[in-house]
Amino acid sequence: MRPESRKQEIINAAAILFKEKGYSAVTMRDLAKAMGIKAASLYNHIQSKQEILSTIIIGLAEEFTVGMNKIVNSDENTIQKLENIIDLHIDVTLRNADGLASLNNDWMHLEEDNLQYFEKMRQEYEDNFRDIVKKGLEKGEIKPYNVEIMVFSTLSTLRTLYLWYPEQKEIDSDILKRDMISVLLKGVA
Amino acid sequence: MRPESRKQEIINAAAILFKEKGYSAVTMRDLAKAMGIKAASLYNHIQSKQEILSTIIIGLAEEFTVGMNKIVNSDENTIQKLENIIDLHIDVTLRNADGLASLNNDWMHLEEDNLQYFEKMRQEYEDNFRDIVKKGLEKGEIKPYNVEIMVFSTLSTLRTLYLWYPEQKEIDSDILKRDMISVLLKGVA
Repeated sequence: MRPESRKQEIINAAAILFKEKGYSAVTMRDLAKAMGIKAASLYNHIQSKQEILSTIIIGLAEEFTVGMNKIVNSDENTIQKLENIIDLHIDVTLRNADGLASLNNDWMHLEEDNLQYFEKMRQEYEDNFRDIVKKGLEKGEIKPYNVEIMVFSTLSTLRTLYLWYPEQKEIDSDILKRDMISVLLKGVA
Repeated sequence: MRPESRKQEIINAAAILFKEKGYSAVTMRDLAKAMGIKAASLYNHIQSKQEILSTIIIGLAEEFTVGMNKIVNSDENTIQKLENIIDLHIDVTLRNADGLASLNNDWMHLEEDNLQYFEKMRQEYEDNFRDIVKKGLEKGEIKPYNVEIMVFSTLSTLRTLYLWYPEQKEIDSDILKRDMISVLLKGVA
């Protein structure tokens, strides 16, 4: 196996353990045991538990940042932009639900520079979301409700998708995208 | 101060500590210190940390159960029932956001009988919610989207309200009810 694949395999196994027990409770020994290898050989691929955590979380946060920047800077209308944000969250959830558990539960365990970098990206993401909603209101492309309530109602659902969707064996990802966009943007009534 | 008020005061102080540090990390000594009293005098009012946790969580779960049962058994149409569920969550959040943090984060620390009782109430609550949505679909009172997606989209927002709303100093509770009902049921588009 190529070193890069081995590293990815370690990161994936760690994400599952972090999700189950929380970052703080997981040791490198636990990780080695879960992978059926010796703890010492983990260090051929990664330097520390912290390196694993930051690889998981910063990678995901950058993915959201790149995706959101594309959406914000596009020429589409507000509803299309909101649809694209929902798609982005669903795509990331489908690819890496375990990693999203680390991002949501363990981001505060990032160390100094990575913690600041993460918090900056998260803030910019929310600010971009809020700007899309505000501009949509100004242009009359969405209904005149309170901006914070609209942002919270949408983000709270998208941010917990990683907990719920992996249990839904009967919902195809195409149905998920179609119906979630409808429910979140057009409502059930 | 009457014994009942003192007990309630202890429970309220504990809910704040549980929210900040998590149930497991809080000791009776921490609680006494936060209240400026001796640890021994806590035991004049309550028997254990577990008694406090179960009083908080079972009390809230019973409140949701009673509220949901009224809604399910009413003669109102589906949209009105969903509006009443949103109102119920907002009312409970306004009254006891700190307690909801315990319910969401620390329910798994309930002991045997209370844990089973809580899980039973939570399951019945979700089943009742699902039934309202299913019957609404059959009657054509809501749009024909996937039931689980509709239930998740609504509940995920209502269940995280306790984290978000206490920070929103500029949103009056009347606006919250009005706009959240509109956003969740009618959408922003």
